[in-house]
Amino acid sequence: MASERNRQWVLRARPVGMVKDADFELVSAPRPEPADGEALVRNRFLAFEPAMRGWMEDRKSYIPPVGLGDVMRGMTVGEVVASRHSELAPGDLVTAMGGWQEWFAGSFGVQKLAPGTDPTLALSVLGITGLTAWFGMRELGRPQPGETAVVSGAAGATGGVAGQLAKLAGARAIGIAGGEAKCRWLVDEARYDAAIDYKREDVAARLAELAPDGVHVFFDNVGGAILEAVLEHIALRARLVLCGGISAYNLAEAPRGPRNLMNLVARRARMEGFIVIDYAARFGEATAALAREVAAGRLVHRVDVQRGIENAPRTFRRLFSGENLGKQLLRLD
Amino acid sequence: MASERNRQWVLRARPVGMVKDADFELVSAPRPEPADGEALVRNRFLAFEPAMRGWMEDRKSYIPPVGLGDVMRGMTVGEVVASRHSELAPGDLVTAMGGWQEWFAGSFGVQKLAPGTDPTLALSVLGITGLTAWFGMRELGRPQPGETAVVSGAAGATGGVAGQLAKLAGARAIGIAGGEAKCRWLVDEARYDAAIDYKREDVAARLAELAPDGVHVFFDNVGGAILEAVLEHIALRARLVLCGGISAYNLAEAPRGPRNLMNLVARRARMEGFIVIDYAARFGEATAALAREVAAGRLVHRVDVQRGIENAPRTFRRLFSGENLGKQLLRLD
Repeated sequence: MASERNRQWVLRARPVGMVKDADFELVSAPRPEPADGEALVRNRFLAFEPAMRGWMEDRKSYIPPVGLGDVMRGMTVGEVVASRHSELAPGDLVTAMGGWQEWFAGSFGVQKLAPGTDPTLALSVLGITGLTAWFGMRELGRPQPGETAVVSGAAGATGGVAGQLAKLAGARAIGIAGGEAKCRWLVDEARYDAAIDYKREDVAARLAELAPDGVHVFFDNVGGAILEAVLEHIALRARLVLCGGISAYNLAEAPRGPRNLMNLVARRARMEGFIVIDYAARFGEATAALAREVAAGRLVHRVDVQRGIENAPRTFRRLFSGENLGKQLLRLD
Repeated sequence: MASERNRQWVLRARPVGMVKDADFELVSAPRPEPADGEALVRNRFLAFEPAMRGWMEDRKSYIPPVGLGDVMRGMTVGEVVASRHSELAPGDLVTAMGGWQEWFAGSFGVQKLAPGTDPTLALSVLGITGLTAWFGMRELGRPQPGETAVVSGAAGATGGVAGQLAKLAGARAIGIAGGEAKCRWLVDEARYDAAIDYKREDVAARLAELAPDGVHVFFDNVGGAILEAVLEHIALRARLVLCGGISAYNLAEAPRGPRNLMNLVARRARMEGFIVIDYAARFGEATAALAREVAAGRLVHRVDVQRGIENAPRTFRRLFSGENLGKQLLRLD
C-alpha cells in the first residue's frame, strides 16, 4: 500500500535573508529499511518553528547546523509501519525529529504517544512549543501575583501559551502581536488582559498606558524594536526571558541591538536566554501539568495545518510572514 | 582661619554630549551654618565616577537628577569643623555626599571614619568603588575556580578591583583597557592573567586566543563595541554583570546596542544590571573584607589625585578621556 519512495526536502544552500524554495530540493529516495533496534515511521505531521531558521546557518549554536545535502531537520509525528525496536509496534504513534520527509527509520529520540493522542496537540501545546513556554515562563520569568507579564510574538504557538501561564500564576498578561485578528484571539480566547498590535500601534506608548507600574516579566520571541520598546518600561528587578528573536532571523546581517540596554542597570533587571532541551529531564512532569490545564479548559491553543510535503518550504515561511495563526503544522497524509 | 565663603560648582545646563565647563558655574556662597543635629564639614577630597554623568540628565533613573542651579552631587571626604551632631566632633574625618563644594552642613549620609583612615582609600577601594566591584562580582558574576572572568574598563577604579576579586575566587582574569600603561598595570600590579588594549588590538580576536573555552563572567563598565565583542565569546551559562556603560555616557543620542544579544539564548547566558546601594545593609562586612585583602597585599589599587576646587569639571572629564590612572580624586586643601 505505502509508497516505496520517500520524498525528502534536502537543504541545498545556506539561505541568505528570507528562505527561498531554491534553498531546498525535493528529492525522491528509496524508502528506508529499519536496522535492528529501529522502527520504520511514516511521518504524518511536520511541525515548524522559527528557531529552525537558525539550524540552516553554518555557525556554532546549541545544535549543529543541518548539513548541505542533508534532509531538513524538524519535529514530526508519525506512525510506526514496521518495527525492529522492542518497544515500538506497527500502528504506534510517535514523535521524533523525523525531518522534512515522508519516511524515516530510526530510534534516537523516537517517543511513543499514548493511544488516541491528538498529533496536533503533541506537536504544539503538549510538545516542545508548550514546554518552551512552561520552562521559560516558570523558571526564568517567574511571574508573581499582581505583576505584569508581557509576551512578544504572543499569538505564536509558544507566546500564546506563555501569557496564559503568566495568568495562571496570578499575573496580568499583555500580548504583542501583529494584526487585529491575532490581538482579538489573545484577549477573547487566550484571556490575555490586553493586546498591542505592533503593526498599527506605538508599542512603547501603549505599554506606558497598559503597564503604568512597569513590566515585571517579558517573554521575548521577537527582539529588535519590540525589545527596545519593552526595555523602556521595565519595572525594578524585571526578568526578561529571551526565547527567540524572529525579527532578525531572515536578515542577511544582524541588526544592531536596543539602544537602552543600560536600563537593565538602573532597574536592576535581568535578561536571560534559555534552550528548552536543558529541561528534558523534567519534560514528563511539565507535559502532564500542561495536559491538566488543557483538559480543564484553562489553556487554549490553535494549530494552523497546511497540507502536502511539496509545500514544506512555503509553510515554513508562513512563520515569518505572520500568516500562521497558532502552531504551524504540515499534514502529509 | 577657615574661609567664610564656600565655593560651589552648581549645575547650570543639562550637558549635551561631553560635559563642558560651561555646563557648570563656580559660585561663591556664604559658608553654611549647621542646624541642630548637623555638622559643619570642610570637604578635603571630591571623588568622581562615570555614573555621575547620568545624574546630570533630566530623566528617571535610580536617583533623582541634580537640579539645575543645585550644587553638583558627589561623594567626598571632609573634616568636621563644628558640630551640633551628637556623634560627630571637630577633627573627625567623614565620608558624605558632600558635593562639589568646599563646605557643607548636614547629617544625612555622613559617616565617621576611623581615626587615621587614609581618605583616598575610603573613597576608592574601601568605598563605593570597591563595594561596587565586590557585590557585582560576588553576587552576580560568581566566578568559580577554573572559569575565566573578563572586565572592561579594567584599569578603572571599579574594574581594577573586580578582576582582582575574580582572581581571589580562583578564576582567571582578563582585563580590557585603553593603552599600554594601563594594560601593563593590570598584569604587573593587579595580577590579571592578561590584558587587551582595545585601542590597538582586536578585542574579539584576542578573546578567542585568551579564552578558548569562552568567557564565564563579564564585568562590564563600558558597553558598546566591547560588550558586542565579549558576547561573541561567552561560555555556556555565562553571567554578564552590567555595572555601567561609559562608552555612551557622553553621546547625545544613545547608540544602538550589540548585534549579537541572541547569543544569550544559544549560550543560556544571563545579563544583569545592579546598583550597589541595594547592598547598603552589607557594606560593613564587605568593607571589612576588602580591608583585609588590602592589608594582606592581595588587593592593590591606584588613585589619581588632582588639585583645586576650580578644576572639578575638568577633573571629571578625565574619566572619559581615559587620562585617569585609578580612582579619580580632587584634593581641595
